[in-house]
Amino acid sequence: MTFLNHKYQELTPYTPGEQVDEQVYIKLNTNENPYPPAPSVQQAVSEAAQKLNRYSDIAVETVAKPLAHYLGVKQEQLFLGNGSDEVLSYLFQGFTEKGIAFPDVTYGFYQVYSNLYQVETQIVPLKKDFSLELSEYDELKGTVIFANPNAPTGIYLAQEEICEFLTHHPDRLVVVDEAYTDFGSQSMVSLIDQYKNLFVVGTFSKSRQLAGARLGFGVGNTELIADLNRLRFSLNPYNVNSLSQAAGGAVLQEQAYVDQKIQETIRVREWSKKELARLGFEQTDSQGNFLFAKHPKVAGEKLFTSLRENNILVRWFDQPRIKEYLRITVGTQEQMERLINVLTTIIEEVTV
Amino acid sequence: MTFLNHKYQELTPYTPGEQVDEQVYIKLNTNENPYPPAPSVQQAVSEAAQKLNRYSDIAVETVAKPLAHYLGVKQEQLFLGNGSDEVLSYLFQGFTEKGIAFPDVTYGFYQVYSNLYQVETQIVPLKKDFSLELSEYDELKGTVIFANPNAPTGIYLAQEEICEFLTHHPDRLVVVDEAYTDFGSQSMVSLIDQYKNLFVVGTFSKSRQLAGARLGFGVGNTELIADLNRLRFSLNPYNVNSLSQAAGGAVLQEQAYVDQKIQETIRVREWSKKELARLGFEQTDSQGNFLFAKHPKVAGEKLFTSLRENNILVRWFDQPRIKEYLRITVGTQEQMERLINVLTTIIEEVTV
Repeated sequence: MTFLNHKYQELTPYTPGEQVDEQVYIKLNTNENPYPPAPSVQQAVSEAAQKLNRYSDIAVETVAKPLAHYLGVKQEQLFLGNGSDEVLSYLFQGFTEKGIAFPDVTYGFYQVYSNLYQVETQIVPLKKDFSLELSEYDELKGTVIFANPNAPTGIYLAQEEICEFLTHHPDRLVVVDEAYTDFGSQSMVSLIDQYKNLFVVGTFSKSRQLAGARLGFGVGNTELIADLNRLRFSLNPYNVNSLSQAAGGAVLQEQAYVDQKIQETIRVREWSKKELARLGFEQTDSQGNFLFAKHPKVAGEKLFTSLRENNILVRWFDQPRIKEYLRITVGTQEQMERLINVLTTIIEEVTV
Repeated sequence: MTFLNHKYQELTPYTPGEQVDEQVYIKLNTNENPYPPAPSVQQAVSEAAQKLNRYSDIAVETVAKPLAHYLGVKQEQLFLGNGSDEVLSYLFQGFTEKGIAFPDVTYGFYQVYSNLYQVETQIVPLKKDFSLELSEYDELKGTVIFANPNAPTGIYLAQEEICEFLTHHPDRLVVVDEAYTDFGSQSMVSLIDQYKNLFVVGTFSKSRQLAGARLGFGVGNTELIADLNRLRFSLNPYNVNSLSQAAGGAVLQEQAYVDQKIQETIRVREWSKKELARLGFEQTDSQGNFLFAKHPKVAGEKLFTSLRENNILVRWFDQPRIKEYLRITVGTQEQMERLINVLTTIIEEVTV
């Protein structure tokens, strides 16, 4: 017998990438930043640990204040979450009464949230080259969500196209998930005041090196944020713990360090693209901290398992449209050189 | 205009106790532990901070393994949450299809979750002395939830009565919220194997000095835990961040320190009860880390505001049945002496 509500009994949960021993594996499977946070983060967290007997600040002031300043928005336009996943969860829970639409190839959690909250869902296939054509959402209704750059493709949709859609559909909420925007593309955050129907999601997990701290955020107009807080105060007002607040606050004082590592990741990404092309891979022009590539002569699954046998972990999705592709996180130069060497051997073995 | 689903537009969120500057106020309003965690917690957190670029362990092994050992249960009988509030939220979301029943005077979040998830709710008044009579739940249906000891009353319900109810209602889930059990009463955890319909909620926020880390847990049979994880993996699998995992793991290695502070809190609680009685207060026999008391000659609100003017913060609930009462967290001996002194003056002023 089960006590679980019947409506949840058929849920298909999200499958996270494996977390493995870094002593053994080169971990290029969950789009983490390969560099640890700046040393001052450790110091800030250590100080916060002495006050753990006290509840955390529900206003998350330590993060919200400098983050609002950095983004050029008001604090009342900012929402902090236990990872951007929690922010997304609130959006699907509370802001999809007229349904939601998103691409067929995108962040896997969108479909999972749709199932969880039983939202009427319209899946719109990306074009053949995996690009997103927003005009295909014109005739649909309700909320639209997409990642920009998209995952796992890394393809970036130009701001003008998003603005055009926002202008033509003032009654439809448009959520732009910018988890990967810091790796070289343009954020929509500066347009928050201009479009009441725009909501931008961000995270400290990728460019800011805090995946383990679970710190995400959303930016929208003050009414939207107030509505989100209405849900948060009915579910878990203390959602961001004191230690992650301290870590987030400290990271925001280390923008030069963060920027330097972003530049390094972009450099290594572009180097890796060239090397993959040299090995015959076909790939998207990824603007994220990952690559999306397939080889005309070796199946995606084969590449994935062969890399794993060589202690390199990448992400492979068993989905029809993308099953020949690998999503490869951009690691350090050294890690990517090792990847290229191993791939060279694998491809030689198969094609000789 | 609002994008929020109409069903959430009338939500009345939970009102948390104020977080204030401890340099100015004696903080006896949110049932926190007045003692910081053991120094080794700081060390553990500091080490974890160096790996924040990696995602947290979704199995929360660092906590689950020693906690299961401490509680004498299997790891598959344990669920970890971002605070026990998150655990409670999942319970209301997923395990209340046939409704839920709870006392009129109890943790305020139960009603908030009922509203959020639109659960059919039966409120059962406590008896005149604030004791809980489980037989009054016999004719109701669906899930039952209560805190034991209850908050804000501190009254403990004997295990035999809970067992009798569990036996007579095998098809009804019984959730016992044991946030305050460590302060001298008996836990139901050892009975998990015996009752398939028992679920026990616990927290690291009170006895374990980690309110700021947001670490809560639930104990139940493996099927219940698997169902909870089905929800968690559809909402936020990385719900407990790396830093809180490290803090929780470290606290579990410091049981002697934890126990010593619990004993001190119990001692100060009993001392405070005698002092309050001496001042003419009527009170429950609280088994929590807080007192629940009213004065026959001074209104609850007056006491609350007068204490606040003297920089002592306690909790006052503006609810008909308990509005003459204060809920006073048991602080250090020094803090409670100051409280008693200030109360003495307030009462003298009013009654002379």
